[in-house]
Amino acid sequence: MKDMGTTPRRLESFVAGAWRKGQGEGRPVLNAATGEVHALVGTEGLDFKAALEWGREVGGRNLRRMTIHERALMLKSVGMKLMEIKEEFYQENFATGATRKDGWVDIDGGIGTMLTFASKARRELPNSRVLSEGPVETLSRDGSFVAQHILTPMQGVAVHINAFNFPVWGMLEKIAPSLIAGMPCLVKPATQTAYLTELVVRRMLESGLLPEGALQIVTGSAGDLLSHVSEQDVVTFTGSAATGQMLKASPAILANSVRFTMEADSLNASILGPDAGPGSVEFDLFVKEIAREMTVKAGQKCTAIRRVMVAKAHEEAVIEALSVRLAKTAIGLPEDDATRMGALVSCGDRDSVREKIAMLRQDAEIVAGNPDAVTLVSGDPDKGAFMSPVLLRAARPMSADIVHSVEAFGPVATIMAYEDAEEAVALARKGKGSLVSSLFTNDTAVAQEIVTGLAAYHGRVLIGNRGSAKSSTGHGSPLAPLVHGGPGRAGGGEEMGGMRGVKHFMQRTAIQGTPEMLSAVTGQWVEGAPVRQDIHPFRKSLAELQIGDQFVSAVREVTEADVEHFAEFTGDTFYAHMDSDAAKANPFFEDRVAHGYLIASFAAGLFVEPNPGPVLANYGVDNLRFLTPVYFGDSLRVRLTCKEINPRENAGHGEVRWDCQVTNQKGEVVAQYDVLTMVAKTWPASE
Amino acid sequence: MKDMGTTPRRLESFVAGAWRKGQGEGRPVLNAATGEVHALVGTEGLDFKAALEWGREVGGRNLRRMTIHERALMLKSVGMKLMEIKEEFYQENFATGATRKDGWVDIDGGIGTMLTFASKARRELPNSRVLSEGPVETLSRDGSFVAQHILTPMQGVAVHINAFNFPVWGMLEKIAPSLIAGMPCLVKPATQTAYLTELVVRRMLESGLLPEGALQIVTGSAGDLLSHVSEQDVVTFTGSAATGQMLKASPAILANSVRFTMEADSLNASILGPDAGPGSVEFDLFVKEIAREMTVKAGQKCTAIRRVMVAKAHEEAVIEALSVRLAKTAIGLPEDDATRMGALVSCGDRDSVREKIAMLRQDAEIVAGNPDAVTLVSGDPDKGAFMSPVLLRAARPMSADIVHSVEAFGPVATIMAYEDAEEAVALARKGKGSLVSSLFTNDTAVAQEIVTGLAAYHGRVLIGNRGSAKSSTGHGSPLAPLVHGGPGRAGGGEEMGGMRGVKHFMQRTAIQGTPEMLSAVTGQWVEGAPVRQDIHPFRKSLAELQIGDQFVSAVREVTEADVEHFAEFTGDTFYAHMDSDAAKANPFFEDRVAHGYLIASFAAGLFVEPNPGPVLANYGVDNLRFLTPVYFGDSLRVRLTCKEINPRENAGHGEVRWDCQVTNQKGEVVAQYDVLTMVAKTWPASE
Repeated sequence: MKDMGTTPRRLESFVAGAWRKGQGEGRPVLNAATGEVHALVGTEGLDFKAALEWGREVGGRNLRRMTIHERALMLKSVGMKLMEIKEEFYQENFATGATRKDGWVDIDGGIGTMLTFASKARRELPNSRVLSEGPVETLSRDGSFVAQHILTPMQGVAVHINAFNFPVWGMLEKIAPSLIAGMPCLVKPATQTAYLTELVVRRMLESGLLPEGALQIVTGSAGDLLSHVSEQDVVTFTGSAATGQMLKASPAILANSVRFTMEADSLNASILGPDAGPGSVEFDLFVKEIAREMTVKAGQKCTAIRRVMVAKAHEEAVIEALSVRLAKTAIGLPEDDATRMGALVSCGDRDSVREKIAMLRQDAEIVAGNPDAVTLVSGDPDKGAFMSPVLLRAARPMSADIVHSVEAFGPVATIMAYEDAEEAVALARKGKGSLVSSLFTNDTAVAQEIVTGLAAYHGRVLIGNRGSAKSSTGHGSPLAPLVHGGPGRAGGGEEMGGMRGVKHFMQRTAIQGTPEMLSAVTGQWVEGAPVRQDIHPFRKSLAELQIGDQFVSAVREVTEADVEHFAEFTGDTFYAHMDSDAAKANPFFEDRVAHGYLIASFAAGLFVEPNPGPVLANYGVDNLRFLTPVYFGDSLRVRLTCKEINPRENAGHGEVRWDCQVTNQKGEVVAQYDVLTMVAKTWPASE
Repeated sequence: MKDMGTTPRRLESFVAGAWRKGQGEGRPVLNAATGEVHALVGTEGLDFKAALEWGREVGGRNLRRMTIHERALMLKSVGMKLMEIKEEFYQENFATGATRKDGWVDIDGGIGTMLTFASKARRELPNSRVLSEGPVETLSRDGSFVAQHILTPMQGVAVHINAFNFPVWGMLEKIAPSLIAGMPCLVKPATQTAYLTELVVRRMLESGLLPEGALQIVTGSAGDLLSHVSEQDVVTFTGSAATGQMLKASPAILANSVRFTMEADSLNASILGPDAGPGSVEFDLFVKEIAREMTVKAGQKCTAIRRVMVAKAHEEAVIEALSVRLAKTAIGLPEDDATRMGALVSCGDRDSVREKIAMLRQDAEIVAGNPDAVTLVSGDPDKGAFMSPVLLRAARPMSADIVHSVEAFGPVATIMAYEDAEEAVALARKGKGSLVSSLFTNDTAVAQEIVTGLAAYHGRVLIGNRGSAKSSTGHGSPLAPLVHGGPGRAGGGEEMGGMRGVKHFMQRTAIQGTPEMLSAVTGQWVEGAPVRQDIHPFRKSLAELQIGDQFVSAVREVTEADVEHFAEFTGDTFYAHMDSDAAKANPFFEDRVAHGYLIASFAAGLFVEPNPGPVLANYGVDNLRFLTPVYFGDSLRVRLTCKEINPRENAGHGEVRWDCQVTNQKGEVVAQYDVLTMVAKTWPASE
């Protein structure tokens, strides 16, 4: 790969089952730092309609055959493989103008995001093909008509259109949730850095770990791709708002109501709390964060800080501290160890940043940096897209418009002073919706006021202070468990957010019917569905156990002596159990009642099968509610029903969820909960 | 109101704080059944920009001041008020052509939906202004940097554009979740039936139960309304796909990424399972349901059945049974007790239905009913928009296109025969996304196959069989707890779905920071946030209790004797507690372990404060996980921390959620759970 810079590689697209070149020689893509031709791209003549159809038919079918955990394990294997060979990607990364450290966010960050999804999916989702969401809704008094929301994979292709700045992360954070959901992907990276995405996709496909049709890539123009999307496809877009809005309004997307998720650059703010003056830890953290966000990836991040808000009293101090810090930024060739900031992605982009700075100067003055001159530690300023960080200051930010609407997508930010916390919030909101804003304060009241004010305008808000100085992942980092996306200018989309992201590629459907019919569809036992009472279900391994397997216990009376004894034994002498007058004074009880924990303990005594068997452990209890008080002399009976079976892919056991219902002699439900157990796949254990 | 039919009412719009007439006399709106002028509408000259601004500023501020439960109680009061005076709405309803029974779905159904939202919100959401969603995400190993997703009301106006067919329900099902979320509403009913919506809004405003700015209505043309929507507004649309797509692509909606939810008419299917032949209960239920859906509201429902799918073998029997049933439909004036089906909303709409039938006849033949002739039990066929139900049959449905894409929005459906279950699914999918489909079968395997195949193309699927014959709410009824909306042709939107619907009007934001900062923002205690240990928190009423109030218990050793005794007392002699060899053979344990219920019971004994006090009851336990086995000789300590306080609006108490952590002598967490209690607002009790 070392000589890639000198021998331009003709990029290919992997569509409809084969790597294909477009017609002709291809358009040159330049190395951002050296200006040399790095790759040639072109998609002319490729059949995108066929690509989508192949993805839907072959990829969709293959992925939907797998369970969610199987898909997650597949992604884990792919991620581990990519980690092994990542050095190759780091070498290719330099051509984008990004340093090794910048590449870490993209490459390690991208693979790490995929691995996080793979592990969260196995931890947080069942090992099934259909997901149930929310509780069973009872729709009739007699319980014969109920409903359950389910989620199933959409049966189209997830078309992921990415920006140039994160050729690896941008793809992986999108395909990870799609593939776990069971949707095949077609990736369309930005042409400027498509060589890196193409290389990663090539390695993923070579690994043989993905089923046929699960992943396609188009390098170069997307041609008529979007005119072939249908009602089961999903399109995600990361990039400029103008392009996103155009795509969102394209005829096939509108006509077929295609789900379209947009994540656009936005004028993210960072606010220094009024409490955090010079000398405070938060002041220093703030200055460091602004400088970092301005220079990482040469400021070409959709989450970068564009608007820097500080109390009037601290404005000069912030400008001074930032200017000193920015002046120290060593700019040069990305592979040079001395370099702190590499090149912008292209000279054209640098020109555009300069134009935007000129626009910003209608509202603001430059207080640090020169947009037109740069001093390099290495590289040629005439060939590479290098530029200095530029800091501006808007003197009247509340009446300004351009600094809140025009984005210079490079190492550029504008300082603006506020009068008070309320004005800081008002300034941030003038961005009309952002991906993220941050606040640096050590005052919880300031945090409460400002964050509450920011929330509706943001997808993410970070609070920085001394308590998280070492552990904070920083303003600019979207994280797999957190939503990424914001309202308004940020595009109104939402990505990731842990398992929320998986659901973006599934259809939610309310299923109505009898409990029996619902159980047949969801694979979960629903109250009222048929049951089977033969041998005690604790005698059954996963190989034998089925939902609906049920055990109904004998009856046990709860006596005053039991309650007295339990109180003495456990030390739980709460007045409602011990003192008749106090219990009667309580709005919920007519007299002394049995302990809730006594009920649950007696229930276990009633339902348990004591002999060694396939049930390995009770690892928890969910949604326990004590619904009717138990008075002395009441008799309890337990009904335990196998509700959900969740075999682990890589273990000799799985999780079984039991519906546990305790009733009294009148048939009233005393307690209702889920008992969670680990159960062996076979018994006697075969492994 | 009785003479409204003869004295046309000039409708007004309530915008920017006042009822306003548009300029001029207004456009006539005709009584659907008599053809008389029923109302005059017009919005010329009204300032919609000002209306939106007034809603955002006055309405938003007033609603955001209230808690979620306060907003829900407000809706409950409004709903009760409307129920009291509903007869007035039923009288006005006749002008729309709808019978009293049709009106029940709209009027009682609409008010009922609002009341359901009001009650579910108080049951399922906390009594707060900010909602937390999902677990706290730990972002650093040391726990000093964590995140929590929150939901806050969007700070714009929810603009609800409704269809003519449900002037009451259509409005109420949309404003209920918006208002609970804290978003003010501006309602734009379809002009054809705006008189009924206007009347309901008038009564709601007169009740004085809504805060200023919470509700506005525009009767007549929306003019330039949508060109003024901004990034914090939400637009929902119910109506034809063509209009919806146009609005969705309007410049301000695109430019500001305005959240746009569309619910469009779709070609919903109903499938008779291959098992359900003539003579079966399901066959009869199916025929009855098809006839009902064709004739209720004269078939003018977005959820009505347009495509009737039956096994080839049963096609003739279904046609015969349906023809007989449809022929019996008494058509006439809506207020006539003999009438089963009223008029379409206008003669123009009837003409359009006839045109669509002509188109359908390219793919299908009429097998029952005459589109051009109607026999009435009352009314004048030349003045009212009456028509007969029309049933068509498509002979080659798999190769047909028009019957799967053209909708006659009236009492019209097309029968199509399938070869097998797979083809039935394929036929349903040819609708390219629907709000709802139904399946009538008594075979769980058929249900499993067909419903799984339908799910990704539908927002709702109903399974009908003998088990729910009496309790089913039917194919055509969206329900407050279930999502309403569907992919593709149905618009790709989602409404209601219980508390999901509330979240459509809130912004989701990931908040990152130290546990202390997060607690300050969310009002919930987060692990690692400051705590207060003074008097036992069980001695504090809600007036004194604060999140972070904590009790740390003494230590208690768990002995072999304890375990033996607990086993004997409760009867829980599970082998892992009793049999050393069996326990050692278990993959999770090294030796005999204490019962989980013993740990929880001892924990309660350790944390409880026994004397009469403000804690009234332990009503449940959530998310209990046993994380480390407890062996004989281990010592337990409990830490109980007040995590969430949720005062009830109309009671002397509230719910308090406690974080309960049990650790052993090594500091390992043995068990982690939430303890749920009822706590008095004051102590000694003042009421």
